Amino acid sequence: MSDNREKILEQIKVQGDLVRKLKAAKEPKEKIDVEVAKLLALKAKVTEDDSEATGGGQKLLLKTPKGTRDYNPQQMALRQGVLDKIVTVFKKHGAESIDTPVFERKDVLTGKYGEDSKLIYDLKDQGGEILSLRYDLTVPLARYLAMSKISSIKRYHIAKVYRRDNPAMTRGRYREFYQCDFDIAGTFDCMIPDAECVKVVSEILSGLDIGDYVIKLNHRMLLDGMFEACGVPADKFRSICSAVDKLDKSPWAEVKREMMFEKGLEETTADQIGEYVQLSGGLDLVEKLQNDPKLSAVKSAVSGLEQMKKLLKYCEILGLRNEIRFDLSLARGLDYYTGVIYEAVLTAMPEITNGGDVEPVTIGSVAGGGRYDNLVGMFDPRGKQVPCVGVSIGVERIFSLLEAKQAAEGIRMRTTDVEVFVASAHKGLHEQRLKVITELWDGGIKAEHSYKENPKLLGQLQHCEEQGIPFALILGNSELEKGVVKLREVTSRKEVEISRENIAEELSRRLSLLRNGDF
Amino acid sequence: MSDNREKILEQIKVQGDLVRKLKAAKEPKEKIDVEVAKLLALKAKVTEDDSEATGGGQKLLLKTPKGTRDYNPQQMALRQGVLDKIVTVFKKHGAESIDTPVFERKDVLTGKYGEDSKLIYDLKDQGGEILSLRYDLTVPLARYLAMSKISSIKRYHIAKVYRRDNPAMTRGRYREFYQCDFDIAGTFDCMIPDAECVKVVSEILSGLDIGDYVIKLNHRMLLDGMFEACGVPADKFRSICSAVDKLDKSPWAEVKREMMFEKGLEETTADQIGEYVQLSGGLDLVEKLQNDPKLSAVKSAVSGLEQMKKLLKYCEILGLRNEIRFDLSLARGLDYYTGVIYEAVLTAMPEITNGGDVEPVTIGSVAGGGRYDNLVGMFDPRGKQVPCVGVSIGVERIFSLLEAKQAAEGIRMRTTDVEVFVASAHKGLHEQRLKVITELWDGGIKAEHSYKENPKLLGQLQHCEEQGIPFALILGNSELEKGVVKLREVTSRKEVEISRENIAEELSRRLSLLRNGDF
Repeated sequence: MSDNREKILEQIKVQGDLVRKLKAAKEPKEKIDVEVAKLLALKAKVTEDDSEATGGGQKLLLKTPKGTRDYNPQQMALRQGVLDKIVTVFKKHGAESIDTPVFERKDVLTGKYGEDSKLIYDLKDQGGEILSLRYDLTVPLARYLAMSKISSIKRYHIAKVYRRDNPAMTRGRYREFYQCDFDIAGTFDCMIPDAECVKVVSEILSGLDIGDYVIKLNHRMLLDGMFEACGVPADKFRSICSAVDKLDKSPWAEVKREMMFEKGLEETTADQIGEYVQLSGGLDLVEKLQNDPKLSAVKSAVSGLEQMKKLLKYCEILGLRNEIRFDLSLARGLDYYTGVIYEAVLTAMPEITNGGDVEPVTIGSVAGGGRYDNLVGMFDPRGKQVPCVGVSIGVERIFSLLEAKQAAEGIRMRTTDVEVFVASAHKGLHEQRLKVITELWDGGIKAEHSYKENPKLLGQLQHCEEQGIPFALILGNSELEKGVVKLREVTSRKEVEISRENIAEELSRRLSLLRNGDF
Repeated sequence: MSDNREKILEQIKVQGDLVRKLKAAKEPKEKIDVEVAKLLALKAKVTEDDSEATGGGQKLLLKTPKGTRDYNPQQMALRQGVLDKIVTVFKKHGAESIDTPVFERKDVLTGKYGEDSKLIYDLKDQGGEILSLRYDLTVPLARYLAMSKISSIKRYHIAKVYRRDNPAMTRGRYREFYQCDFDIAGTFDCMIPDAECVKVVSEILSGLDIGDYVIKLNHRMLLDGMFEACGVPADKFRSICSAVDKLDKSPWAEVKREMMFEKGLEETTADQIGEYVQLSGGLDLVEKLQNDPKLSAVKSAVSGLEQMKKLLKYCEILGLRNEIRFDLSLARGLDYYTGVIYEAVLTAMPEITNGGDVEPVTIGSVAGGGRYDNLVGMFDPRGKQVPCVGVSIGVERIFSLLEAKQAAEGIRMRTTDVEVFVASAHKGLHEQRLKVITELWDGGIKAEHSYKENPKLLGQLQHCEEQGIPFALILGNSELEKGVVKLREVTSRKEVEISRENIAEELSRRLSLLRNGDF
């Protein structure tokens, strides 16, 4: 297998070169497409091989499971920065946090995700309960609310979820990925919590360095009303809704074909839907639709439009105008939504090519959500409902985007917070270093030193420069005899002598000066 | 089954009452023990029932999987506070952070945990790779270092791990639990990184409100040398080591019996071991053992003692003396340790009874670790070694302890950071509230309001008092007409009028005064 693998890797290289040559020569698209398809087929072969489990006698294959990755310190620093900003917004809106187990009893997840249920990871039956890894954070929240008999909460939850999907790592699509959810549960007045969710998404996206975005808004009741008005039979509402959901990836002609040939709609019905789903706008569009005779005759369309009007008005009070758009083509995949639905997309798509790879990085939706009033009741023994509305931030896509951006700009983040490095100028000083660094640690200063007894001075100073450590304390016998040590400002390479006594205090003083100068 | 369950629950209640009565009457221990055993058997019955999967037609059982729990906002606030303190110490020592997937290819975990491998959770084979949930963070670290060809790193990793163990929830033993690991990988000089790990544990435990502790230290080379000196055959070192490991729970007589009858040692050999493992102390003990003729004849004992001497000397320079103890009975369960081993235990065990339950909460070890120089090489294709040393903080036990303590003291932590609640004095003000709160949010102030259009004033103010929110802004038409709003200090219930204009600025000013007064 290993030999075969190397052969394929070689073929991939050759085929990749060919594709690049054709592109450089601006050959016709069809010709390039054929060769790209061959390249992708070769790549798929390697992935397949990789994902086969290695048997007993075979060599250990050193990789993470398909669709997963390790985060190195650089990636963690970036990720932590993004998550901190998101949590700050969640907390600004008064959210509490909860956590639930990574797996649930399988029956908790059953019947919640429709077609996507096949993507759920199951645990092996090792005796005892039948378990599955969580697929999202919404169903566990609903299970938690019903089980704990909580009828009102505003909570955020940041945790990993699991889907046996086809990974597309360059686009930030993984099998193990973070979700960052903010939800408001409880019986409240129309659209007040719903509008706050839009505000939360907007504050988060504005605070991250990812360019312009728009939050598309729509309403499930309006969608259903529109289907009814166009003559869709009620039992086809959800499947036609799924078809509409594909409009962000496929052209109308294709969606129409699906409606007619797969889902059995009349062409005239499909055409009527086609006219509506092209519409997007603001309050003006709501008013226009309120005067539409077909929609006015359908009760759920009338309610949906009333609610949309309220939502748009509240959004305007919350300072949102250009960031939002009422969009009739927004449908969302999940069945459990019952009211408003949201989806945020980046409008100025940054095109970052991924090394020598053929496809550009495209980032779709970066947040989504909606109202789901009937999910908690599915868990409550007496069917007691707790209405909920929430949004989920697509942080993996945001990580991928920011990672690619940093790579393109050659930015290297610091991965530690070390403020002082304690160095030896010559041999035989490791115990002196330990004494000094103990005083620093006990004084609350972030410090490190070499774990070698006699490290070279040059190497120690290089480490400080590479790691962006602001200060180096350099110990030497002649200074120690005088009761001083050398303090080096790493960037300027300026050195001063400071007293060995009260060294932690003196450094704290200088570090706080440095921080104030910085901010 | 449900009827049967109720019957057993009733029996548990009756039996529990009986046990409490016997205890109150100070009846003989044997008599009580018999009834306690009956009680535990009844309880086990319920747990068994619960852990059977519910079949198709049965009602959904509303629970988290066996051995797992949800964290509510109170528990999350406590947990976050503890983790923040731990991370602060890790960062003070210059650690970076990494993350790895929650599952690994099964072969990565195979052959790393000895007998405990049966506790690994496997994923169902759904086509593709054979996967298991991670059992600790050490093996994934070793896999990561080998795979990424990293030969030096100081990293922390806080994440959940999974063990199909018998849960003992009142003692903080779960099947899903957090590990907080700090490890130093790289080829360095003897005992310098090893001593820093002791310092890290000591800083963390001193910083948490959990009472006195001692960090026991020992060395695998010394243990092996001691076994050799006592006449244990080399192929029995690891199994005798496992027996010694039980000394923290079982008396010597029992461990001796295991050595003789299960592991086939001569009584004289066992007795010699018995004399050594009673010893504990400091540098003085090392020196005494260095003069022990039996140990001096064994090479690995001599090296182990030399290294222990160095470790204790470095610990003293690091300011550790009463917190540490060289303890020859410390053995640690895992096979992969090759050098120093650590274990921290609480010395002033707080006895907190858990409601009406019969067993007091006892917390064993709260941190542990050691040196493992050969683990990374098991993953590297050319067997390249990366020596490692690290510690793991037993945070679940610490959470359980602090939770019980807070419950006993009736402490309720705040679960949100809300600074200002925007209230309506009367009907018809919800849009005004939205305007004001938008200004606060946009000004970076943590604020919330009621999601009802016309909430009662009393209810709003009660919410502020219950949640510990410092300020309430009370909007009313008569004030708004004058261009002011009422600001209420929630604890003192004092009210002042402040200008409606620049309201965010004014509140920021007052909040910063409040914070400075607090700290």
